Amino acid sequence: MRVAILGGTGDVGEGLALRFGRDTGHAVVVGSRDAERARAAAAAYRDRLADRGHETTMEGAVNAEAAGGADVVVLAVPPYHVGDTVASIADAVDEETVIVSPATGMKRDEDGFHYHRPGAGSVTRVAADAAPDGVPVVGCFHNLAAGRLADLDTDLGVDTLVLADDDDARETVTALAASVDGLRALDAGPIANAAEVESLTPLLINVGMANEGIHDPGVRFD
Amino acid sequence: MRVAILGGTGDVGEGLALRFGRDTGHAVVVGSRDAERARAAAAAYRDRLADRGHETTMEGAVNAEAAGGADVVVLAVPPYHVGDTVASIADAVDEETVIVSPATGMKRDEDGFHYHRPGAGSVTRVAADAAPDGVPVVGCFHNLAAGRLADLDTDLGVDTLVLADDDDARETVTALAASVDGLRALDAGPIANAAEVESLTPLLINVGMANEGIHDPGVRFD
Repeated sequence: MRVAILGGTGDVGEGLALRFGRDTGHAVVVGSRDAERARAAAAAYRDRLADRGHETTMEGAVNAEAAGGADVVVLAVPPYHVGDTVASIADAVDEETVIVSPATGMKRDEDGFHYHRPGAGSVTRVAADAAPDGVPVVGCFHNLAAGRLADLDTDLGVDTLVLADDDDARETVTALAASVDGLRALDAGPIANAAEVESLTPLLINVGMANEGIHDPGVRFD
Repeated sequence: MRVAILGGTGDVGEGLALRFGRDTGHAVVVGSRDAERARAAAAAYRDRLADRGHETTMEGAVNAEAAGGADVVVLAVPPYHVGDTVASIADAVDEETVIVSPATGMKRDEDGFHYHRPGAGSVTRVAADAAPDGVPVVGCFHNLAAGRLADLDTDLGVDTLVLADDDDARETVTALAASVDGLRALDAGPIANAAEVESLTPLLINVGMANEGIHDPGVRFD
């Protein structure tokens, strides 16, 4: 399978690219609005994995080119760029492509981080609304701390929640997530349930900031 | 310490009364709007604990009477009764009493459970706004499945999050929560952060409904 990570030069994109590259056997394409930055990031990730003995297929390309030919396209971009990014790849995806939305809207104030719910209901819904007709969108990878994800010496040992309205797309993304070592993929229902999943991200940051000994926490449902 | 559980005849109240009675050594008072129901529930809980070899001090009383003389008053009532319940005990509490709010607002539709955020910002904030001046309110015990809580054969093995604006009150409730076997109390910051904590409750229900082998889930932050 071919997995494109748009915004793959950012911190969540970096962690996903490294984990997918190391654990899944899928070809990874790092996407960016700037082709040169995308290629540089892909080369750097490939080198980091090679240093650890993992030979990977990792390329870089401008977002629309990265999305073209990908089976799964992950929108590892800030929430306010989700709509634009989906629009920018509209001609490169089709009904066989699964778009994955991991972003969450947050605001910080003096008390902590808070969920900033978009008018559409959730960021995952924003992505779904922006996607061309028939192209399925799945919410996943929302609650993973970027630092922990990118630190390959750290076992994840956490859950990620999958939100989907399309059964085949859900299955594809669940399998992708579950192929990452230490990541368990759980079903959180349809995209209509995304706000509660996205809302968990600021909570995790608050818990990480307030408790000694809990750094970059993830969550487990048991 | 004396802990009153208002709405102690309900399912969350039942679980908290049984766990506090078994694990903490505190005197527990089961409160209800109806004194007779409160006394019957307290007797039933006391018998269940006695059957398991735990002799406990567990009484029942009408809510205001239960709250009088309690060090901690837990509002184990539905979210839409939180304001009324606090008003009904206003004369029975003082600055030495800590009020604890575990309720969360939810709505169910065909997709799942969703957080129904009160205009005040959170149910914990509703409780804090309703409390008499100087009486501290703490958010805690939001994300505990009632069925699991009341099943004393089940190890909890989960976290609960503490929200407080008052350091002493936070410390009292953190110690109470941590004295329940298998419950870890984590700091989630001030009450301003309560919406994200309350929002986790419908998510847990959705995850429990959607995944085989996950029943009455709790959450762990690691």
